[in-house]
Amino acid sequence: MADTGWPGCAKSLKGVILDLCGVLYDSGEGDGVAIPGSIEAVKRLKESDLELRFCTNETQATREKFVAKLQRLGFDISVSEVFPPAPAAIAVLKERGLRPHLLVHDGLLPEFDAVDKTNPNCVIIGDAAENFSYQNLNEAFRVLIGLEKPVLFSLGQGRYYKETDGLKLDVGVYMKALEYACDLKAEVIGKPSPTFFQSVLSDMGLKPQEALMIGDDLVNDVGGAQYCGMKGVQVRTGKYRPSDERHPTVIADATVDNLAHAVDVILGQRGRGA
Amino acid sequence: MADTGWPGCAKSLKGVILDLCGVLYDSGEGDGVAIPGSIEAVKRLKESDLELRFCTNETQATREKFVAKLQRLGFDISVSEVFPPAPAAIAVLKERGLRPHLLVHDGLLPEFDAVDKTNPNCVIIGDAAENFSYQNLNEAFRVLIGLEKPVLFSLGQGRYYKETDGLKLDVGVYMKALEYACDLKAEVIGKPSPTFFQSVLSDMGLKPQEALMIGDDLVNDVGGAQYCGMKGVQVRTGKYRPSDERHPTVIADATVDNLAHAVDVILGQRGRGA
Repeated sequence: MADTGWPGCAKSLKGVILDLCGVLYDSGEGDGVAIPGSIEAVKRLKESDLELRFCTNETQATREKFVAKLQRLGFDISVSEVFPPAPAAIAVLKERGLRPHLLVHDGLLPEFDAVDKTNPNCVIIGDAAENFSYQNLNEAFRVLIGLEKPVLFSLGQGRYYKETDGLKLDVGVYMKALEYACDLKAEVIGKPSPTFFQSVLSDMGLKPQEALMIGDDLVNDVGGAQYCGMKGVQVRTGKYRPSDERHPTVIADATVDNLAHAVDVILGQRGRGA
Repeated sequence: MADTGWPGCAKSLKGVILDLCGVLYDSGEGDGVAIPGSIEAVKRLKESDLELRFCTNETQATREKFVAKLQRLGFDISVSEVFPPAPAAIAVLKERGLRPHLLVHDGLLPEFDAVDKTNPNCVIIGDAAENFSYQNLNEAFRVLIGLEKPVLFSLGQGRYYKETDGLKLDVGVYMKALEYACDLKAEVIGKPSPTFFQSVLSDMGLKPQEALMIGDDLVNDVGGAQYCGMKGVQVRTGKYRPSDERHPTVIADATVDNLAHAVDVILGQRGRGA
């Protein structure tokens, strides 16, 4: 019988999914900074026999610009390997014939260039940061409250993230604000939505139990992946807080100091198993 | 046995508490506008044998400036008759030795002039309107998340209110945002807090069953008053929406077109009873 505990489970893995911000780099002014050891760790995973994808709730830039930033930081990553919420949202809009009012970061707007936004019948919010002004939030609220059946999509549900100059409020906080204002429940697109994780697994051609998620967000990365049947490992970088290790409901399969350490252990196990 | 239903209950009333915005006037550019018939209705209540107080979650101005605005609109109201949340909050701060970080409207700041705000160990949010920028909300968040025991006071918990140019998000929406961001529960000061209603009843020298609250907010005015043992009547002005009359849990003792109509009925009943 295969070892299902950490680190033995690494022997039977077929793929790894990595969160980006807080695992590979810390965001902040300019491109942010790579987390020590993470560039080499990604390189080692790519050279291994493991499938590798990147699953992010990043919504401040188009996928192309975001990947270009990662490349400038030194990471060997291509656009087709990265899964952010915006393309998934556009697929949902098409499927359901919805026209969005957007409250997102200026950098994300080009993703929605080809989307019909006239006479909106839903609202999409992303990590809009400074665009979360009182006026803009009020405008999104008025669109929702004016709809007979208000539909709110939230690109992620994170509470906050860490930039080089400190913690920043994330989209989930504004999702809760609009949920309360309009007495509705938002549909989350992005982690920890099972549909979102499943789309990445499909692209890898793997079953959940064959994949491992590594992230800094206990609830959205680790808990979300575990809910889908994957293993979930938390790194002590990014938004990690010591209290995560005493969380009442989400217990990571392992908590490791950083990505480099996680990759050491995974590849070490596989070396021994071979 | 006294008639406890509407309108018969008006015969045994000893006092009336009125909400202000949406009942006496609609806010908006400048001083806003008086709701037709409300100036005369307040005058008639004052000439009656009923105790009269005004209970508001208004936090955009000091009590003095706010009452001066009501007087300019034509209402015969004095400062001592008006109960807003800020003075109640200051009493709580003193009692518990707390120093606030304030996220409130510029117009409310003078209320807190004499309050020690150095090295804050709690956060107070009011209806800050345009001051609810991303940066300001993030600053309040960082104060809270940095405290060992974070304490958040919210001056009211309203979802939205109506100005002459449309609906505006109220403080409750940002309360929910910070509650989610910091995984805590705010303490509400203002309606519908029972402590707040009780302080008004004490000032009137009345028991709850001797008083009637009239407001446009079904949950915070009507439901809050009923929870304390008062009668609660909703007016179809201000933020009233037809769906309020189908609310699953809060059922007003009566729903009337406006304040003038409510006062007609109350004084009419008392005239008949005399």
